[in-house]
Amino acid sequence: MAILVVGSVAFDAVETPSGRRDRCLGGAATYFALAASYFTPVRVIAVVGEDFGADEEVVFSRRAIDTRGIEHVSGKSFFWSGSYMKNLNEAQTLNTELNVFQSFSPKIPAEYEDTEYLFLANIDPVLQADVRRRMPNVKMVCGDTMNYWIRDHVENLSRVLRNLDALLINDGEAKMLAHESNLVVAARKILAMGPKALVVKHGEYGATSFFGDHAFPGEESRTPFRAPALPLAEVVDPTGAGDSFAGGFFGYIASQPRFAPVVFRRAMFYGGVMGSFAVERFGTERLQQLDRKEIEDRFALFRQLSHLD
Amino acid sequence: MAILVVGSVAFDAVETPSGRRDRCLGGAATYFALAASYFTPVRVIAVVGEDFGADEEVVFSRRAIDTRGIEHVSGKSFFWSGSYMKNLNEAQTLNTELNVFQSFSPKIPAEYEDTEYLFLANIDPVLQADVRRRMPNVKMVCGDTMNYWIRDHVENLSRVLRNLDALLINDGEAKMLAHESNLVVAARKILAMGPKALVVKHGEYGATSFFGDHAFPGEESRTPFRAPALPLAEVVDPTGAGDSFAGGFFGYIASQPRFAPVVFRRAMFYGGVMGSFAVERFGTERLQQLDRKEIEDRFALFRQLSHLD
Repeated sequence: MAILVVGSVAFDAVETPSGRRDRCLGGAATYFALAASYFTPVRVIAVVGEDFGADEEVVFSRRAIDTRGIEHVSGKSFFWSGSYMKNLNEAQTLNTELNVFQSFSPKIPAEYEDTEYLFLANIDPVLQADVRRRMPNVKMVCGDTMNYWIRDHVENLSRVLRNLDALLINDGEAKMLAHESNLVVAARKILAMGPKALVVKHGEYGATSFFGDHAFPGEESRTPFRAPALPLAEVVDPTGAGDSFAGGFFGYIASQPRFAPVVFRRAMFYGGVMGSFAVERFGTERLQQLDRKEIEDRFALFRQLSHLD
Repeated sequence: MAILVVGSVAFDAVETPSGRRDRCLGGAATYFALAASYFTPVRVIAVVGEDFGADEEVVFSRRAIDTRGIEHVSGKSFFWSGSYMKNLNEAQTLNTELNVFQSFSPKIPAEYEDTEYLFLANIDPVLQADVRRRMPNVKMVCGDTMNYWIRDHVENLSRVLRNLDALLINDGEAKMLAHESNLVVAARKILAMGPKALVVKHGEYGATSFFGDHAFPGEESRTPFRAPALPLAEVVDPTGAGDSFAGGFFGYIASQPRFAPVVFRRAMFYGGVMGSFAVERFGTERLQQLDRKEIEDRFALFRQLSHLD
């Protein structure tokens, strides 16, 4: 089934120990959409400026991603520049220019209204809640956020959390949101805020999911699940790894006829798989040119990497 | 088959967010021996002072651990005190008194000479190499070390590494030993120093093993393996987690008739299992009172935590 992502489509400039790019297509919605597109049809709601042209459009259209929800306005697209020279695990933001994103007011095309799977990428929680409210027929909603919204907009964020099927954040964000340094206790506190499941991304150490009482209809499966990450000899550009994880994770779920614990666990693996591809090249280069066999081969490698037999 | 550990038997004082203990039996060899004792007969080579009495001896004898190699000399046992108040993942050493350990010169009882499995716990690499040389019939040797020996005694350490079947260290130690921040590249460099396998412990994120060309006789299995750690709501006392991991890991291997990749992978899980028990209570309290069923139940939980089906 189709999946709808609302989030940023942007231009990034990055420098990493492997090199630099002054302008590559980026943004959470872009990474998410590309990663999810290998599993299920994808629709995007975003806003871009006049600098977003045919070269960028084709990145989406080659993957058959529906871009009718990408609004084009006058001005420049969201621009972010960051450096991983000091720490490959955490971007140092050098510059953020919101540009057209500053007045982003998500518009939902009529053709999108039947979408059953909704991903709220990391944007203002007021917008996340607004989109969620205007999509009353969605079957499953997952979301992301970041330290800025957790620290300064937690009330707005809490309204989003109440209605999430799964929240996907990293260790530091989870601990900040729960005001708690132990991850298991933090997870319990976050699940009490509303999400039925919590996926905590650990970067090179993989990800762990925690489940509330109602995570799976009719099933009592509350054992956490830990998915590995691929040990990589070179991380070329970590940008978008988390969004690619989310795209693989939720894209796989949306592609399945039934939601169950085993689907969730496999989705965690596909999340790790897509994250591992994303960081192998700059920007979305690698995510643009995958095929399903490469993905399945790497899924098999993830299994080999973590399974006893 | 019996396993021999050479290392420290000590008294520890620790403070953690869960409380404090002014004097509990500790030392790498103690944690290792207790953890391994649930899998295979264990022999210990260490030195203790007059403060090591019947109360301490019984901790070993109740687990049928052979203590004929624990030398008793006049003076006080090795004493370490540390605090985890600032960071549960890394001890802050408050005080180290080497005492009788300062002049430790390992003596190998004649009854130990047939031992086939040797664990060189974290002690001076000169002593590690010496014990290794005097045990020419061992079938498999694993070892540990720490930042102090890596930084200031790397030449002596390199002589130990050349003859190891597996080196067990943590992330920081691996990166320091290889002068390399990427773990995969660091692992390659360390394997080039001699060990056939490298087990890197990630604390709450589990452990990853890397394999050289000759890790398994007759098998070409070089895919890394990642074992989970148990997400715990309370870590009472992290002291000895790594040594307990090593004890579960190597104890399981020594208990098996044949060494093969699947044995190594299961050993990684048993390592995680014993580490998870160790940190649930202060000192060795939890490791003293386990039974095999609890261990197997937790092994099953580790599988559930990380396996797709």
